[in-house]
Amino acid sequence: MSADTIEFWYDFASTYSYLSAGRIEALAKAKNVDITWHPFLLGPIFQAQGWNNSPFNIYKAKGDYMWCDMARCADKYGLPFVGRKEAFPMNGLLAARITLCFDGEPARAEFTKHVFHAEFGQGKDIANADVISEILIQCGRECDEIFALAKTPKIKQKLFANTEEAKAKGIFGAPSFVTSDRELFWGDDRLEQALDWCLK
Amino acid sequence: MSADTIEFWYDFASTYSYLSAGRIEALAKAKNVDITWHPFLLGPIFQAQGWNNSPFNIYKAKGDYMWCDMARCADKYGLPFVGRKEAFPMNGLLAARITLCFDGEPARAEFTKHVFHAEFGQGKDIANADVISEILIQCGRECDEIFALAKTPKIKQKLFANTEEAKAKGIFGAPSFVTSDRELFWGDDRLEQALDWCLK
Repeated sequence: MSADTIEFWYDFASTYSYLSAGRIEALAKAKNVDITWHPFLLGPIFQAQGWNNSPFNIYKAKGDYMWCDMARCADKYGLPFVGRKEAFPMNGLLAARITLCFDGEPARAEFTKHVFHAEFGQGKDIANADVISEILIQCGRECDEIFALAKTPKIKQKLFANTEEAKAKGIFGAPSFVTSDRELFWGDDRLEQALDWCLK
Repeated sequence: MSADTIEFWYDFASTYSYLSAGRIEALAKAKNVDITWHPFLLGPIFQAQGWNNSPFNIYKAKGDYMWCDMARCADKYGLPFVGRKEAFPMNGLLAARITLCFDGEPARAEFTKHVFHAEFGQGKDIANADVISEILIQCGRECDEIFALAKTPKIKQKLFANTEEAKAKGIFGAPSFVTSDRELFWGDDRLEQALDWCLK
């Protein structure tokens, strides 16, 4: 039996979400905490704050810093990282919808990790359906069926609802972690603290 | 002999700078790293980004979160913390100028720690000259002389120059840490990483 469950909220465009996607399973397992995987869209949340782009593009010094920091952190955690991407942020809409086509956390987790790895570990364009097809094949999935499902109102609505739920939980950035007693933690650097909270 | 020296850049209005001011000495000592203390003003840097207030006030969800996170972190580090302050950010101009009246890092460090403790540990108004006088007395200093010095063009210019130097080093937030090979680290949560960098 697990001690607790933690919600992992991420946007596929988010660099630091990649770090957490690569780290959370081993850390949570060591603490006997279950994970639920929650893709959402930061875009509407940023737009409500008056941003029509990533703050890392709007604020140049912050953006320059973020890419250096990401390289240092990826190195520290032993995660592959292609470095600064000119096309940033990537459009993660398709990947987020497809994640929500899967029932069950293991399938969502597996697909999510593959997408982040393709994006930041290999420098691939995750808005490209061919890239997503390759990943689906790696996951042993039938592409046509899932692409069709991803376009249905049901899945679009699920992603919209996830984003609304994120807002309602006070989420304003990614990655974020929410404990079962609704404590919010923001940022890959708060992952350990969030998991420790579950054990309190 | 020290392995290296780290620059600690802080703004007295910055909550997370308080955490670093309370933590840096023990951590640096353990790694045999010297510290230089650099007060600067975030205001002009934020204004250049189009912010006329703290981003924690401009972006409500981020501000709500910051105060929760600060309470958790202060608790983790065993630092006193009065909690959310309605008057935020405090005006740290006087405290920053007075810090620069002191020659030598030990005196700057001592005054800085007292100011942060009064502000976030005790909830005092550090823009109030009486609060600063009390701290100067605690530090064994002659108040009149230092208040007079703090108003001179020389000291005003020093603070302006510090802020310009911060900008030139790519600093966009506080606390920040700069190593002798000019590697920049931002945020109290990067303090350990910054010190480790000094030992490379």
